[in-house]
Amino acid sequence: MTKNFDRTSLEALLLKRFFYAPSFGPYGGVAGLYDYGPAGCALQSNILNIWKQHFVMEENMLELDCTMLTPYDVLKTSGHVDKFADYMVKDTKNGEIFRADHLVKNVLKKRLEDDELLKNGKAPTQAKGKGKNKKAAPTPLSDELRKEYEDILEQLDNYDGKGLDGLIKKYNITSPEAGNPVSECTLFNLMFETQIGPTGSLKGFLRPETAQGQFLNFKRLLEYNTGSMPFASAQIGKSFRNEISPRQGLLRVREFTMAEIEHFVDPENKNHHRFDEVKDIEIVFYPASNQMEGKGTVTTTIGKAVESGMVNNQTLGYFIARIYLFLIKIGIKHEKLRFRQHMANEMAHYACDCWDAEIENSYGWIECVGCADRSAFDLTVHQKKTGEKLVVQEALPEPIIRDRWVIEINKPKFGPAFKKNVRFVQGYFDNMLEDPTISYPKTTKDSEKLWNEEKVLEFKKKLEEGNGSCNITCSDGNEYTVTSDMVAINKITEKINVREYTPNVIEPSFGIGRIFYSLIEHSYWVREGDEQRAVLSFPACVAPIKCLLTPISHQDEFVPVLKDIAAKLRAHNISNRVDDSSNTIGRRYARNDELGIPFAITLDFQTTKDQTVTLRERDSTMQIRDTIDTVVDLVYKLVQGKMEWKDVLANHKAFTTQEV
Amino acid sequence: MTKNFDRTSLEALLLKRFFYAPSFGPYGGVAGLYDYGPAGCALQSNILNIWKQHFVMEENMLELDCTMLTPYDVLKTSGHVDKFADYMVKDTKNGEIFRADHLVKNVLKKRLEDDELLKNGKAPTQAKGKGKNKKAAPTPLSDELRKEYEDILEQLDNYDGKGLDGLIKKYNITSPEAGNPVSECTLFNLMFETQIGPTGSLKGFLRPETAQGQFLNFKRLLEYNTGSMPFASAQIGKSFRNEISPRQGLLRVREFTMAEIEHFVDPENKNHHRFDEVKDIEIVFYPASNQMEGKGTVTTTIGKAVESGMVNNQTLGYFIARIYLFLIKIGIKHEKLRFRQHMANEMAHYACDCWDAEIENSYGWIECVGCADRSAFDLTVHQKKTGEKLVVQEALPEPIIRDRWVIEINKPKFGPAFKKNVRFVQGYFDNMLEDPTISYPKTTKDSEKLWNEEKVLEFKKKLEEGNGSCNITCSDGNEYTVTSDMVAINKITEKINVREYTPNVIEPSFGIGRIFYSLIEHSYWVREGDEQRAVLSFPACVAPIKCLLTPISHQDEFVPVLKDIAAKLRAHNISNRVDDSSNTIGRRYARNDELGIPFAITLDFQTTKDQTVTLRERDSTMQIRDTIDTVVDLVYKLVQGKMEWKDVLANHKAFTTQEV
Repeated sequence: MTKNFDRTSLEALLLKRFFYAPSFGPYGGVAGLYDYGPAGCALQSNILNIWKQHFVMEENMLELDCTMLTPYDVLKTSGHVDKFADYMVKDTKNGEIFRADHLVKNVLKKRLEDDELLKNGKAPTQAKGKGKNKKAAPTPLSDELRKEYEDILEQLDNYDGKGLDGLIKKYNITSPEAGNPVSECTLFNLMFETQIGPTGSLKGFLRPETAQGQFLNFKRLLEYNTGSMPFASAQIGKSFRNEISPRQGLLRVREFTMAEIEHFVDPENKNHHRFDEVKDIEIVFYPASNQMEGKGTVTTTIGKAVESGMVNNQTLGYFIARIYLFLIKIGIKHEKLRFRQHMANEMAHYACDCWDAEIENSYGWIECVGCADRSAFDLTVHQKKTGEKLVVQEALPEPIIRDRWVIEINKPKFGPAFKKNVRFVQGYFDNMLEDPTISYPKTTKDSEKLWNEEKVLEFKKKLEEGNGSCNITCSDGNEYTVTSDMVAINKITEKINVREYTPNVIEPSFGIGRIFYSLIEHSYWVREGDEQRAVLSFPACVAPIKCLLTPISHQDEFVPVLKDIAAKLRAHNISNRVDDSSNTIGRRYARNDELGIPFAITLDFQTTKDQTVTLRERDSTMQIRDTIDTVVDLVYKLVQGKMEWKDVLANHKAFTTQEV
Repeated sequence: MTKNFDRTSLEALLLKRFFYAPSFGPYGGVAGLYDYGPAGCALQSNILNIWKQHFVMEENMLELDCTMLTPYDVLKTSGHVDKFADYMVKDTKNGEIFRADHLVKNVLKKRLEDDELLKNGKAPTQAKGKGKNKKAAPTPLSDELRKEYEDILEQLDNYDGKGLDGLIKKYNITSPEAGNPVSECTLFNLMFETQIGPTGSLKGFLRPETAQGQFLNFKRLLEYNTGSMPFASAQIGKSFRNEISPRQGLLRVREFTMAEIEHFVDPENKNHHRFDEVKDIEIVFYPASNQMEGKGTVTTTIGKAVESGMVNNQTLGYFIARIYLFLIKIGIKHEKLRFRQHMANEMAHYACDCWDAEIENSYGWIECVGCADRSAFDLTVHQKKTGEKLVVQEALPEPIIRDRWVIEINKPKFGPAFKKNVRFVQGYFDNMLEDPTISYPKTTKDSEKLWNEEKVLEFKKKLEEGNGSCNITCSDGNEYTVTSDMVAINKITEKINVREYTPNVIEPSFGIGRIFYSLIEHSYWVREGDEQRAVLSFPACVAPIKCLLTPISHQDEFVPVLKDIAAKLRAHNISNRVDDSSNTIGRRYARNDELGIPFAITLDFQTTKDQTVTLRERDSTMQIRDTIDTVVDLVYKLVQGKMEWKDVLANHKAFTTQEV
């Protein structure tokens, strides 16, 4: 983003060079859906390849590719059916729908901006309400009201539906374009729903995150990893959010690429064996306490951040550092990158601590990577629901001997005694389990279940007081008589050889589209003195196309040489683009600077004589001249990061040519 | 597939080594949904990378990444809403649902197999029908009936719903397990439906193919390609089919990865500029005529196949050859690969010619790649529906002068004359257009539209005969009087400088999951004399992991050397897996042979003395010994395909060690 950053110009460039465009253009498009064109697709693919190398290969992570279609039960258990929702309101006259918190935010922000302008003697742009809804011209705000608005904007995440309704009423917030009143808030679940199979009986959703598939494969992954901990799984894939009213281009879309890591770790030891490698990296942190106290950010090393307890543990710290290195590597600017800690009220329902990598772009500081400690939340709820053990078993150095009380039900006696009410009586005993919400597999013996000692002993006492018979009140409200021949209450002694625990999960979760867009803004600038000549200065490793191939003029004699160089570049896996259009050479360079192509090989009349070509660097527009083979080799080394442009200049004298 | 191929053993291996597994395992899975584990994910990713190199990079194809969510209108236009459906029947008692053609096929096939067994004096396995549905033991078939069944199976694709109902009735086909009667056929659309946005007013589907997004971006793609033809776009992504009753593992799933190319070509010139490079490749063809006449396949070069007209044109032929080369490169066996031409009746609704690459595996000859000529179908229907021009404009070498007749409506006269019925009168004239189904944009002038000369002249005559006034009968059944001041009928002379045409599309479309599964079967074998030792002999280029790293024993002194070699391999982008478990070295080799890892570096006690290691080749189990750096370099060259194992043996003497 340059000083005079103009988003409209950038967006026009991105459309013209087909980085991305609204999907289904001929049909008028659909809000929140975008297609990536050849340039965008290659840029995204390069970002993802570097991601794979930087994370998956570097740490031998176990990559997965899970389905997007997800049955209802899974997302009910994970909490998404109940909690993955936003509040929305409707314009009561024209039916336009708004996300409630965004409406409040936009209206109050606009009023604050208008007030600012008025106090500086400028005229604010007026809202477009028509007829009797035509809005009164903005009026200045009292200091008191300004403060109220500012406080609300700061705390907006704290308001629930009722709270938002209150704000809308109190501050007379109407729909911004039409000026109509809006309805009360209703919750809208953000998952796309569908039916799996022809019977209509299996409801499903498109996944809202790639994480659940990784949790549900935990057992297989642990086995694949020959049982050893810690380890991480990773997945790149699409996820879906049925956004209420998506705006802001790629920052808020309904279908998006994510890259997620689930690092499974022993809750009792969150140290990381490679932490030392990253501990001296300096990072900008914005801890929760500073946000609450209105203080700014803190710059320190990740080592000190963990040592001081600001970042909870080494594993979380390690990933923060690795995320930082990844983002810098692909071209995100250090000074536009910070790690902000979530405040308690904004944490997702599954998270117990979370740091977001926020990247600054023209929309503000945007959350692009979340790094959350999901604790044991997901594995625990899925295990409870399904009865499948999602745990780690570790041999103990010494066995532990312990006593515990169990109840064993004599099933053959239960049936005849309680007949069709047996389930109520069974339910009474199930409630005496340590955790009644666990679904044990049917084959689990009563003695293997974990019982609540207090409850068992209480029942034992009752039975003894009744001389081996007592009445119990069950969930149907009736009393039943239980006798001691029906249930055995025993203390058993166990020798425990294995420690069993549910791992905690540290989850770095990357919104690739947001990183992609921020990277484009950070790479965009305009050549001084020529506002028509925009450049996207991507690092060579992510540039969509690595090398432009262009002949000085549109003549047939260049065709075989072009083909030959293209083949040589392909053999080195260097993507190239041939531009042999009839535009001037300067115009062609300019057009390909807009695609962010870092290097250009130009064929001129000398080429056909001595097999030399020129090599141009995008940002400096400097050129050198050498033989075809040398130049191809230089491009290979530059693209691989084995050499920099200054190294090329050290061995070549600059070749001057006119860019017209 | 070895001679004694046992699918059950292979499937157990694939699950154990986590190539793939049913999704949502702890929840009992969902039919037709599979997750790819680390081994499967890497194998798929390598197949796709080679695909990208072989097709996209090699031909500078324009890659896209379009959304899966697709609005109703797009798929209505493309024909999928009406035609992308299968017939299903329901067990009338237990509600079980079957795809009708599969039911008929399976039942008749079973009867033929039973008959075969009976005639050979063997007892067929019996169907499980219970109670009064318990089936009579299979009885031999008459020769006549055998022939009938065989003919039906051959022609099954020709039957529609009524036809299938007839077969079910005539041959008394019931649900195979329960033996109950089944309902009549109903059509079931195979697209997953959902709602886009919160209003419920925008119905959408998950795409059934990745092609539509490519067609709808045609205009931008052509522009990106600086207007020059022919060119191809390509897309890798997931598509969805709500299969009625998916079985057959990865061959019939509800969510799957496709890789599709849309090669846009001038319908008047389907030659291909690189056809010469492939013309001598020998391929097994199974043309439609041979299928109809009960003849076998034909082996010939692609050059001759095109020359003789068996394959329609060079571009289709070029892609058939490129598909062949790709499949062979990743490890599909030549003798289990053929190209079968679609018969007219089985062609998709959009295709005008189609050759499938069929790969033989234990399920039979399976369609894995389609190579269809979709003609101008898709671009034409979308243009008609939306009015957006999806055409190529080419400057003509010489302008063409032509006359044509047009009608120009004097709109200001129409309103007062026909009032609220104006649309019926307008409709009458719209029907005089050359193609009344085209939606011209509103801004198109009448003189720019293409009128049907015959109809225009007929109307002109009618108007002249009525002395500038005539009655017309409109679609509402009423007569209206039109006078010559309301409509001008003119002959205009045009100078045409530009040839405008809708390109044809050649579409190679890859079902990656089917290729993936077939490749696994082709790579699977069991070491002679030891049925426990299975091997997956993937070519190194697709092997999920390239190199195993394993110490001869589980001792601490190996740890730093292991780390060092792993880092060296990573620096060469060679994926590796460390197996330092306490199993015997032979057991560890065997386990990693099951993952298809082509090379293994083993550290032994000599390593710590002289920095040498052994290198083992998977298929031969032969080993050589050399220094760490040399071995890493050898692995790099072997994986890159710059060297073969026999080259290694030429320079090294075999190192013998015991595999226990």
